[in-house]
Amino acid sequence: MIFQKETVYQTTKSWIHEIGQVIRTEIDQPRDIDTKTNANDLVTEMDKKVEQFFAEKIRSTYPDHQILSEEGFGDNVTSLNGTTWIIDPIDGTMNFVHQKRNFAISVAIFHDGIGEIGFVYDVMADVLYAAKQGEGAYKNDEQLKPLDEKKQLTESIYMLNTLWTTDNPIVDEVKIRELVKTVRGVRTYGSAALEFCYLAEGIVDGYVSFKLHPWDFAAGAVILHEVGGVLKHAEGHALSFLNQEPLVAGHKDIVEATLEHYLVLK
Amino acid sequence: MIFQKETVYQTTKSWIHEIGQVIRTEIDQPRDIDTKTNANDLVTEMDKKVEQFFAEKIRSTYPDHQILSEEGFGDNVTSLNGTTWIIDPIDGTMNFVHQKRNFAISVAIFHDGIGEIGFVYDVMADVLYAAKQGEGAYKNDEQLKPLDEKKQLTESIYMLNTLWTTDNPIVDEVKIRELVKTVRGVRTYGSAALEFCYLAEGIVDGYVSFKLHPWDFAAGAVILHEVGGVLKHAEGHALSFLNQEPLVAGHKDIVEATLEHYLVLK
Repeated sequence: MIFQKETVYQTTKSWIHEIGQVIRTEIDQPRDIDTKTNANDLVTEMDKKVEQFFAEKIRSTYPDHQILSEEGFGDNVTSLNGTTWIIDPIDGTMNFVHQKRNFAISVAIFHDGIGEIGFVYDVMADVLYAAKQGEGAYKNDEQLKPLDEKKQLTESIYMLNTLWTTDNPIVDEVKIRELVKTVRGVRTYGSAALEFCYLAEGIVDGYVSFKLHPWDFAAGAVILHEVGGVLKHAEGHALSFLNQEPLVAGHKDIVEATLEHYLVLK
Repeated sequence: MIFQKETVYQTTKSWIHEIGQVIRTEIDQPRDIDTKTNANDLVTEMDKKVEQFFAEKIRSTYPDHQILSEEGFGDNVTSLNGTTWIIDPIDGTMNFVHQKRNFAISVAIFHDGIGEIGFVYDVMADVLYAAKQGEGAYKNDEQLKPLDEKKQLTESIYMLNTLWTTDNPIVDEVKIRELVKTVRGVRTYGSAALEFCYLAEGIVDGYVSFKLHPWDFAAGAVILHEVGGVLKHAEGHALSFLNQEPLVAGHKDIVEATLEHYLVLK
């Protein structure tokens, strides 16, 4: 099958704006203003609604494409041959529930193993990060600049979930605490998809996470790639984009410095 | 002296908008786009410029008021008798340098020891958090609701600098790591003044920090107070608003739960 990149890109962009408007309308409806239970119900319901929206659109428009996603409307994807949509309907569900902002729709489209298109949509801010492989990354209409590769680890702002500095079954927390003391500062925003976009914007410089699924990082990976950034498995090899994987991201030297000194998986 | 609260409030608000516009104009001027050194020079220069702007305005308009601030244009303040302005010209300097957003102007006005007025201005987002003691807190034109006091520590999103989970001379990091594992999630945004406003908005629920100066928290304290929130010294007593102090903030029960189980100063 020929992959009609520009058509798929424009179609997806219009779908994202369409469902984004639905979320903005429904997020403040009276039923969810009072209790935590209602708020949790809302996010579960919204997660499913958004994923189902994409699944129906994709299946009717591109019946030969496969879908890798979180909420159960996708396929059992075991290879990236052909065209694969990797979708997180609501990335940053805790932010969705507690903040009603700082969450994103994340949509990546891979073709024969290559990340061809990535969209991360900050729904409440109405900011769309978008990239086509080989054609640059954009924040709305503004093209993002290449990452500043001169920036050293010691000068960097790093993103990580503070839990990784505590006793955990996945990564050596003592080394992570050394990383925290090495970098200039740490930020935690609560949406992996948006955090990859902040890397691509150059407002933060490094990122580690150890329990992300492909739908959390696939679109961000396409966007980050377009500004010269890299994502690697925490053991230093390439990511499969098929499984839950521990990873590190940033510009090449930040990633290498992190891998060399601070990431020891248990 | 009679304290003309409404007049002072309106005057200060107009000053904040005036200097905010200057910052937005100057932050993107060509001289700071290329190197870190230039960016650091810029923030130092801007910090001083903003503080000097307020110092000159205050001294000419309110010659009997005193000023407590960071960059050296203030007074040697040893008591909060009379009227005291507590000012951070740029709160979140690392964000200013690296992100060119997510920093704030913080201005509090105390009269005879009472926090009467608080302003925190998110300059790039053009969002002004403002409060007058006893008259509620606002985010631009929207009045903020009282904090949800039913929310338990285990359900809360907590803000802290990740450094406090590592070996440090001030607070028992093992207890802080227990706190991290107890709460629902951790966020770190890099501007204390804005973080107090996020507490007041109810999008996060708790906050600890151990090296803040009065200018980092005074305006936030006035704003948070208006939605029923509290700030306490990490030993449980009231803050002096005159010295660098370790503190905890949130609604009353979150603060008490944090004090009781997780804060052990060294």
